This record gives sequence, structure tokens and C-alpha cells, in this order.
Amino acid sequence: MSPEDRLRGPVLALCGGIGGAKLALGLYRHLAPGALSVAVNTGDDFEHLGLHISPDIDTVLYTLSGTDNPDTGWGRADETWTFMAALEALGGETWFRLGDGDLALHVERTRRLGAGESLSEVCAAFARRFGLDARILPMTGDPLRTVVHTPDGPLPFQHYFVRERCEPRVTGVTFAGAEAARPNPEILRALADPALGAVVICPSNPYLSIDPILAVPGMRIALGACPAPVVAVSPLVGGRAVKGPTAKIMAELGVPVTNAAIAAHYEGLIDGLVLDRADRAEAAEIAVPALVTETVMTSLEDRIALAAAALGFAAELDGRRDAPTREAAG
Amino acid sequence: MSPEDRLRGPVLALCGGIGGAKLALGLYRHLAPGALSVAVNTGDDFEHLGLHISPDIDTVLYTLSGTDNPDTGWGRADETWTFMAALEALGGETWFRLGDGDLALHVERTRRLGAGESLSEVCAAFARRFGLDARILPMTGDPLRTVVHTPDGPLPFQHYFVRERCEPRVTGVTFAGAEAARPNPEILRALADPALGAVVICPSNPYLSIDPILAVPGMRIALGACPAPVVAVSPLVGGRAVKGPTAKIMAELGVPVTNAAIAAHYEGLIDGLVLDRADRAEAAEIAVPALVTETVMTSLEDRIALAAAALGFAAELDGRRDAPTREAAG
Repeated sequence: MSPEDRLRGPVLALCGGIGGAKLALGLYRHLAPGALSVAVNTGDDFEHLGLHISPDIDTVLYTLSGTDNPDTGWGRADETWTFMAALEALGGETWFRLGDGDLALHVERTRRLGAGESLSEVCAAFARRFGLDARILPMTGDPLRTVVHTPDGPLPFQHYFVRERCEPRVTGVTFAGAEAARPNPEILRALADPALGAVVICPSNPYLSIDPILAVPGMRIALGACPAPVVAVSPLVGGRAVKGPTAKIMAELGVPVTNAAIAAHYEGLIDGLVLDRADRAEAAEIAVPALVTETVMTSLEDRIALAAAALGFAAELDGRRDAPTREAAG
Repeated sequence: MSPEDRLRGPVLALCGGIGGAKLALGLYRHLAPGALSVAVNTGDDFEHLGLHISPDIDTVLYTLSGTDNPDTGWGRADETWTFMAALEALGGETWFRLGDGDLALHVERTRRLGAGESLSEVCAAFARRFGLDARILPMTGDPLRTVVHTPDGPLPFQHYFVRERCEPRVTGVTFAGAEAARPNPEILRALADPALGAVVICPSNPYLSIDPILAVPGMRIALGACPAPVVAVSPLVGGRAVKGPTAKIMAELGVPVTNAAIAAHYEGLIDGLVLDRADRAEAAEIAVPALVTETVMTSLEDRIALAAAALGFAAELDGRRDAPTREAAG
């Protein structure tokens, strides 16, 4: 398959919430309609107030449909907060902020799951309703829950991330229920598709957003066996994470806060790493081919440009992978 | 017990939603703090969007706390509707309008019931949170559901009342689950309390709001055996209901749309009926003592005045009941 074909083929992105969704939006806008599938982390999902909440899926839905809140980075644009105020007056739990419009997704998702629909079916229905021509694929429909270990004991993800504001020191991350979780078959099919153009691991937190996806049994093997090139976009810029606690967690886990460490984290899975110009000096230390470009996404144009660069890089890597074969054959 | 003692004693009101809650508010404001208990219809309760909704209880909570919406008569003041708009965009069911603030009660109630609290406990907790010094007592914590029968078949209450706007002809009303429903023991205790000053049946729909309460096993007997005087306030004025389909249903059921028919409906349960000045000509036809007064409640003062009149009437009836005994003793 030529680089040009690769660029036209379907693309699978792996992502978590805010940071990763930015690049997913770039890919969505860059690619032809229907070409993008997004495998989304559901390790952050939790039951709260009796509702099934899928924060990363909702962030991807809002971001791709342009209904996200640009000020907060999470939740919806034009949101109101009457529910939260009324819940507080009733003495309910308010540490997890649920906007009135956002709540519609949680209530309707919970209702549909209770009526027997799968999480995949709910995601597909919501994506259609949001007018998206992309497939939003939860990594699994089974409960796989990210647990953050701290010196004071384990914390469910949202307790760590939202209630404790990522302040506790992380001593490890585990995934409760991982053994029994079944991978979303649509993701496995996408990964095995000979026409697949590329897999892009978005600049989400490797430990909290991508590792849960890889923890689903079968996912790591399917990604490793994928015929298409796999590139990751590093979430680090100048030794810091653009968004979220990636750098803090790496330091707490005793991992060097470097792009080489990000590449090592994805060892055996990725064919190349995209890193920021600010870190060009690190390129030589990285075990896989590296593309140095602008990875900080401020505008929509930044998102699209990074998506195009990552896909071009993937196509180029694929050409290189194919090259020896062609030479051998010629 | 003298009329004056009766007026000071605790009072139990029976009511449904909007119309009845107006008089409950009058009683609440007229009586001493802590003196009012309200036995509320839960035959309208239903599961919707996975939530346990108790429309009449919420109307009583909002009305007594002054947080009701004076324009609609239902729901909360200062409400927003972002949830409903977002739910509609998702293709969810929107025929039952749930305001953003109102939703907090449904979500928190459902959560608490799921955690094992009783409906009574939830009501008590909400009443405290609303700052109420009155007891809001659901008639039962068990599922007793009002079913409205029509020529096209039976309809769950809210489908008849909200979705079909009371348009279908009513051929009968039944109460699914009534046999197994257990009466709220606090209501039975209130009815048996020798200190009880009066029972007031609010001008709610007798068929749709009061009958469900009376359909709870044990309730009719407890009310009939109650030592305190029981007065009902007629929901009819000039052959029409001030609010809701009472008159329409009476006509459809072949019952004369008269105050005498209202009194007959409560035969054996009430000691007196309060009716409007507009219907003074009907007073002579009523089988129980009647008080003619202003029953249309426009202002808060109207509500309090009607409450005072109904309680004064009850005290007077009680005096009459006691009178022969006193004469016999003297």
C-alpha cells in the first residue's frame, strides 16, 4: 500500500479525554467523512448518583461535534447549572460537576443500558444524534475501572482526578475488572482491517488514558499485530504535560520525564513517535523513528495540522517498512 | 376536647398535587410550627428515564417551601430547561417536562431509594432540606399505581394526565398493586392520635388524588375510625373544578357534577363538607353538615383563610359530636 493510499484509508485513533480529543478533532476534520474511528478509554467511567457516567466518551462526542466548552475543556458549551445548585440544596454529592445539558447524556445512557443496549450501541446512537460521521468506540462495554494507588490507599479514578485534583502521589495504577473485560469487537476489526491507513495514539495520559485501553485483554496483541503503521503523539512538551498530570505521575513513578520514556512505554506497539519542536534535542534518544513538529494545539488549525503531520509521518513509516521488501523483490 | 383545643392540636391533611397543595400551604401557614402532617398521594408516581418521580410529593414540597412555580402551578420557580433540550437532541422522551432543578429531586430520590432508604425517609430528608416544619408523608412506600381506564384501554396515570392531557374519556379508575401496598404507619399513627385536631381532605381530585390514598389497605378503616373530625373541601365551584379534570371525570363516570355527589363519594368518612359560596344553593342537598365559604384560592391570604375556616368548621362539628355526650353526663 502506497503512502497516498494510507492517507486515504480509514484511521483509528486511541484517546482519553481532553488532550487526546483535541487531536481526534484534528483527525476528524482532516480526514474524509466516515474515515475516522476513535477507540475511547472507559476506565474513567463510574456510577455516580445512580447514573452511568462516561467522561472520556462524552468529551470526544462534545469535541468532535463542536459542542464542547472551550473555557473549561470539559463539559458542554452554553451549559447551565441549576441541577447542581438544587442537588447541593438537597445535600447531594456535588464534587463531580454535572451540567444540566451534560446530565441528559448520563440519564439517557443509563436508561438505555438499563433497557439492555450495549455501551457501544449507546455511543453509536449518541454519535448519530450529534451528527458525527465518525465511529466512537468504547474500548469495552464491560466494567474495567482505573484505580490510582497512593500512599493513603487506592482511589477510584474520579476520586483521584476530580475530587482530589490529582494531588496524591501516585504509586501505581491498576485496572479493576480488566481480566474479565472483553474488547470492543469493532476495535479489533478496525485493527485487523487491511485497508487501515494508520493508528494514532493521541497525546492522552499514557498511564491513565491509554493504558486502560491496552489493559483490555486482546487489545495489546491486536495493536501489535496491526498491519497499519502505529504512531503516538507525545503528551510531553519541554518536560511537562500540556494538560493533566502525565509529567507528575511519571516523576512519582520514578520514570524519566522524557519523550524517550514515552516511546519506551509504548515499546513494541508503535512505529514512530511525534514530539514537539521544543524537545527536538531528545529525538536522537528515542528508540523509534521520531517526527519533530508543533504539538501544542491552540487553534483548530493547529489540531488539523498536527493530525496531517502525524498521518503523513505514519504513511512515510509505512513506506519505509515496505521498502526493504520492495528492494528484496526487485 | 374543646373546639379551642382542636384548633391547637395537630392536623392531618390528605392531598394530591396542585389544587390540594394550595390548601396544604394555607394549613401550614395557619397552624403552629410542627402541627401539620400531609398524607400525599403517590399513585401518580412513576419510573421515567430510570428515575423515580413523585409528582405530588414534589408539588407539596415546592408549595409549602415557597419554591413552586406560580406561573405553571407545577415545578419550581426560577427553573431552567437545558436538560430537556439536550435530551430532545438525543432523541429521548420529552413528553414529561423535567426542569433542571426539579431533576435534582428525582435523581437524588432514585439514588437514595436504590441505596435502601424508604420513600418516607427520603421525603422526611427532603422536607428538612427544604426547611419545612411539616411532615410530608407518602401514603405508602409500595408501588400503588393509578390506572385510568378509557375506551381505548388502560393508561398509566401520567400518560393520561400529561401525555394525553386528560382528553380520553374515563370509564373507570383502578389502583394497580393496591392489595399489596402497606399504609405509611406514620399516617395510621396520626389518624389514631387522640390529640389530633382535625383531618382535612384537600380539594384534590377525589378520583385521581384522594381515592389512591383511600385504596391503600387499612387507610379507609383508619380514617373512618379517626377520633378527630374529618372535613373535606369540595374541588367543585359552580359545577366545575377549579383545576384539573374532576368535573369532566364525574360526568364521564355518570356521576352528577354536584357537591352532594362529592359528599356521597366520601360517605362514611367525612363529618362535613366545605363548599363555595357559588354553590350555596346545593348546601341543603348534602348529606353531611356543610360550610359555605370562599373556596377559590387566588392569594396566600385566600389559602390561609380557607384553612382557618375548614379547621374552625371541624372544631365546631367536633363540638356538636361531643355535645350529646356532655348533655348526657350533665
